[in-house]
Amino acid sequence: MIKVGIVGATGYTGAELVRILSRHPEVELAVLTSRSYEGEEMAGVFPHLTGFTDLKLVPFQKEKLALECDVVFTALPHGYTASMAGEVLAKGKKLIDLGADFRFRDARVYEEWYGVKHEAPALLAEAVYGLPELYRQQLKGARLTANPGCYPTASLLGLAPLVRAGAIVPENIIIDAKSGVSGAGRKLNLRVHYAEVNENLQAYNVGRHRHTPEIEQELSAAAGTELRISFTPHLVPQTRGILATIYTEMKTVITTAALLDIYRDFYRHEPFVQVLPEGNFPQTKSVAGSNYVHLGAVADPRTGRAVILAALDNLVKGASGQAVQNLNLMFGLAETTGLEFPGLFP
Amino acid sequence: MIKVGIVGATGYTGAELVRILSRHPEVELAVLTSRSYEGEEMAGVFPHLTGFTDLKLVPFQKEKLALECDVVFTALPHGYTASMAGEVLAKGKKLIDLGADFRFRDARVYEEWYGVKHEAPALLAEAVYGLPELYRQQLKGARLTANPGCYPTASLLGLAPLVRAGAIVPENIIIDAKSGVSGAGRKLNLRVHYAEVNENLQAYNVGRHRHTPEIEQELSAAAGTELRISFTPHLVPQTRGILATIYTEMKTVITTAALLDIYRDFYRHEPFVQVLPEGNFPQTKSVAGSNYVHLGAVADPRTGRAVILAALDNLVKGASGQAVQNLNLMFGLAETTGLEFPGLFP
Amino acid sequence: MIKVGIVGATGYTGAELVRILSRHPEVELAVLTSRSYEGEEMAGVFPHLTGFTDLKLVPFQKEKLALECDVVFTALPHGYTASMAGEVLAKGKKLIDLGADFRFRDARVYEEWYGVKHEAPALLAEAVYGLPELYRQQLKGARLTANPGCYPTASLLGLAPLVRAGAIVPENIIIDAKSGVSGAGRKLNLRVHYAEVNENLQAYNVGRHRHTPEIEQELSAAAGTELRISFTPHLVPQTRGILATIYTEMKTVITTAALLDIYRDFYRHEPFVQVLPEGNFPQTKSVAGSNYVHLGAVADPRTGRAVILAALDNLVKGASGQAVQNLNLMFGLAETTGLEFPGLFP
Amino acid sequence: MIKVGIVGATGYTGAELVRILSRHPEVELAVLTSRSYEGEEMAGVFPHLTGFTDLKLVPFQKEKLALECDVVFTALPHGYTASMAGEVLAKGKKLIDLGADFRFRDARVYEEWYGVKHEAPALLAEAVYGLPELYRQQLKGARLTANPGCYPTASLLGLAPLVRAGAIVPENIIIDAKSGVSGAGRKLNLRVHYAEVNENLQAYNVGRHRHTPEIEQELSAAAGTELRISFTPHLVPQTRGILATIYTEMKTVITTAALLDIYRDFYRHEPFVQVLPEGNFPQTKSVAGSNYVHLGAVADPRTGRAVILAALDNLVKGASGQAVQNLNLMFGLAETTGLEFPGLFP
Repeated sequence: MIKVGIVGATGYTGAELVRILSRHPEVELAVLTSRSYEGEEMAGVFPHLTGFTDLKLVPFQKEKLALECDVVFTALPHGYTASMAGEVLAKGKKLIDLGADFRFRDARVYEEWYGVKHEAPALLAEAVYGLPELYRQQLKGARLTANPGCYPTASLLGLAPLVRAGAIVPENIIIDAKSGVSGAGRKLNLRVHYAEVNENLQAYNVGRHRHTPEIEQELSAAAGTELRISFTPHLVPQTRGILATIYTEMKTVITTAALLDIYRDFYRHEPFVQVLPEGNFPQTKSVAGSNYVHLGAVADPRTGRAVILAALDNLVKGASGQAVQNLNLMFGLAETTGLEFPGLFP
Repeated sequence: MIKVGIVGATGYTGAELVRILSRHPEVELAVLTSRSYEGEEMAGVFPHLTGFTDLKLVPFQKEKLALECDVVFTALPHGYTASMAGEVLAKGKKLIDLGADFRFRDARVYEEWYGVKHEAPALLAEAVYGLPELYRQQLKGARLTANPGCYPTASLLGLAPLVRAGAIVPENIIIDAKSGVSGAGRKLNLRVHYAEVNENLQAYNVGRHRHTPEIEQELSAAAGTELRISFTPHLVPQTRGILATIYTEMKTVITTAALLDIYRDFYRHEPFVQVLPEGNFPQTKSVAGSNYVHLGAVADPRTGRAVILAALDNLVKGASGQAVQNLNLMFGLAETTGLEFPGLFP
Repeated sequence: MIKVGIVGATGYTGAELVRILSRHPEVELAVLTSRSYEGEEMAGVFPHLTGFTDLKLVPFQKEKLALECDVVFTALPHGYTASMAGEVLAKGKKLIDLGADFRFRDARVYEEWYGVKHEAPALLAEAVYGLPELYRQQLKGARLTANPGCYPTASLLGLAPLVRAGAIVPENIIIDAKSGVSGAGRKLNLRVHYAEVNENLQAYNVGRHRHTPEIEQELSAAAGTELRISFTPHLVPQTRGILATIYTEMKTVITTAALLDIYRDFYRHEPFVQVLPEGNFPQTKSVAGSNYVHLGAVADPRTGRAVILAALDNLVKGASGQAVQNLNLMFGLAETTGLEFPGLFP
Repeated sequence: MIKVGIVGATGYTGAELVRILSRHPEVELAVLTSRSYEGEEMAGVFPHLTGFTDLKLVPFQKEKLALECDVVFTALPHGYTASMAGEVLAKGKKLIDLGADFRFRDARVYEEWYGVKHEAPALLAEAVYGLPELYRQQLKGARLTANPGCYPTASLLGLAPLVRAGAIVPENIIIDAKSGVSGAGRKLNLRVHYAEVNENLQAYNVGRHRHTPEIEQELSAAAGTELRISFTPHLVPQTRGILATIYTEMKTVITTAALLDIYRDFYRHEPFVQVLPEGNFPQTKSVAGSNYVHLGAVADPRTGRAVILAALDNLVKGASGQAVQNLNLMFGLAETTGLEFPGLFP
């Protein structure tokens, strides 16, 4: 059994890791840390986990984690993981960071967009960007994995096939993304106060969301050229789910059927990416609670544009489920272990 | 492998059976019938099942079902199952009805409240009321199981310990139940049209809901005396979840701690009933998508009343999950097989 | 023009007062105070008020309020209004408190349930309980009005006709109330965090909600005898709306038609109480954003109980709209001035 | 008093017309027609209108309408109004169509996108496109007004200032629009069934929504050149509200402040268009139930794009409120009569 520690277990991605890992046949939950709920039982804080874990929440201690765990998941505000990762790795343990600290190849990009100094730039070269559909080989056996952001996961899975195929004009990519409110986390904030968000629809951080450079880094790598995108996130009155609607300019106008063939071919061996039939569009509810991504596409001959749609659950494929997928790869397990459950519909 | 047929697979309880059974290690889905979607793929109608079943929907044929299945689940409007059950049983197969046709011991009660003649009254004596917490022994090896209604499941699990213990006045039971909208099914109706139901809260069928006599039958049996209850269902703007708030008059006023002890004792070996600690109240979201029931209770010395709270997912423990629990019992499997997954929170 | 000050203008009831009063033909908004948003424009904090007020938010100053206003509305946590009311009245101004400080005739009941000492018990004798349907005569010309709680408004309007008529057994009253989340106010709290409340349903403060003694005080007065009720509040995933489902024992069993006649007769001259036809049940959405209350009733001959349903908007008839109705009475205006707008459906 | 008839009064836009017009000081509701609810009281079908109209619903009769009304609103499926408009006008009455029949200057565009033959092409030349911000002069005294679609209203108000100013590249306009479910109307459909739509997010009619040519017609007119846009509508789990997120390429990169100045200047005399301060983004909830439009904009120097945001209530400014605004203009009333109420927040 792989012994797992979760640092920041009482945020939504932490609790979601526990939900998934408590049923993972090769994993044993060993340590759950929390600053806010230290000393309480995890299942007391999250009653849905009653019967699935009897662990108590403990304060964060690097030594204890390194001692008792084979792998540490960190679900922390940015900056924290960078300051502790080296020590965990030095003890021969693996680390999967659900935050942004190790997502950027260039520390300066991180520092510019996140506004803090990177405390472990030397580790960036080793960190693998944990999107298995693009980096599977590197993830096998990796020690340090940077789990992608929720929006980047949807955006990159929607765009990678076209960018790699050279089918679209790289300068003309627009991503209009919509997210459920759980993506904002469990921290109190008037912006996610029920009465402010319910029956409401709004954009936020227009032109300056921190997932923008992450998407650009990976798309640039896929395209083989530096590119810039427009990315606009929106908050939608639902709990889970991201839908990315992506507008691209086709280099040569093709049919929707041909467009979908590019996707089906690209993802033909992927266990968690499902390309919907022509005329069907992804719905977030179809993948709620699951690790699947649904993709759809329409080629519009009137405008020469291809519109791509990608739906996922921001807490699963957009965070904790993908992190478990990465754990499976890092430890040589079957990639789908513990993750083969369908979405909760309706 | 137990071969399963589902009659009425494209309603919500039918689709939920497929969601659960597609991962059940001892079951093989063999036949899915649908009148509305005949000839289509199940996963085309319900994209969340993509990769979990490749069955096509076929028209209902008694012979085919009896031939190809070991057990048939029926998820149909009332009246239909009664007209076919005999034939299925005669072929040596088992039947689990998610409808009301076999829930009543007395056909006249059924006929009075459902307004149709019962077409197989002779089978009522054999049918077992499929609430494992009350009828586990009878369910082991049963051929014909009447899966309880969603409201009765919540109400009976909330009341049985007190009624059996003789702790409350049986004439004075009031059940105020609230349900998410999926309980109304998938049939089109202005009453469950999104814009009519969202941000809205209302009671319906006050004083005459068909689950009333079902609750009364089982409580009367538990109390050993005929009793009548007040039952008021409400429609709440959420998809899944039932919360029953139950008001009772204590024969002797006891403390909340003593009240909870009655529950903990009654359910101490139950795999799917979880009694919350004093001061904690059940939330539907904690059990969403799961087969668990959460119970809470408060003894109010000011009024001499005990208030009981029971939460479950109307499509799982209130319907399809409980039906699978019954299948496990009827076939001698471990009762929890295929059902040990936690609620989806948040 | 009546000059109005609002203390606590940036909570939901404060903002709702501004929404209503900004269109009131006899009122001029003069002073809006806020601790959290001091110095900001009200319409900057609440963009829906753009064009309806250009007032800036100022810190609380008793002198300024007494100087510049004819009447002060207070929308504050309990305790604050008691400590300032005397001074406002002494300057010859009127005061309408949306909090609990002046709702109780007996300071000891307030002190027991609210856990603080009452700082102006001498004013309780003068304070009028601001439920116009019961205290219209006393409100005309009143100086100090205690605006009722949201749950008590629904509960009392639902029960007063039967209690006054002596039609029910006063010992046997159960109120199961459900509220939208805006009733919990704008203060940050994990309990009203979007992802915790959405798609969730739960009871809270079972057996000990502070609106219990308020309801009991007024029902006891109406019944002419001390009575105790069971009151259970629930949180429902919607923004606005309260539905109270009330269970009573009829002294003599009558028909639903006769029951509704009692209500129609009692409320025949009331501008804001609408009794629905037999078979129709109140929906919160029908009264959302409006000052109306919808009432329905069912007499159940099986159990001898009468089930009463009352729906209102917790922020309007349950708070700010009723406060304006009280202002109209206190200043001798037509009672409906500024309040005749229908609910927002769908 | 202007006597008004509404044909199709029991759809959502019809009921919304009644909600607004019942308080309009210069209007008398004279005739409400309905096929589904003929003979019933309007306030029986829509309880929120109790006390605001005592009209009964009558079957559609051209003669009765022409006889008893000064103006007829039609809220019908496409095709119906074209077949009756001539007769109404011939009787000297005015007509405001909330459908699409008279929105296109060229009948062939209508016929191509709506799939039916236009039955009154001769009237198209006279019909005025009822967007007061662009066609105010023509609407004054008009006999036949084509009320714009909900998405076109948001899109055109968001784009007109930039297109008129020549500030953007007309070939590169992308409109990503999100709508609440009430926009789909009151007709039963699985796509707007509560359990299918709630907690769900999806695009629909990608590349082929009928509002596309309507937006293109008006933008082409504003630009003075034929242009084509990409338009993608989405369904969001809320009842009311449209948010259009519009992506444009700036001809010359300017600052956000300069961009907003273009909007403030363009709309400086408009009563219902409110341009938010820099850094503030429109929320649908701020305009819910009101006739206001909120606009925001961001100039992104990284990409050279301007992102425009427009929020409105699809049933008010996107339909019935705008229709009343047009009535005011057509009859020479103050344009804001009966429409000056703020949004319902929260």
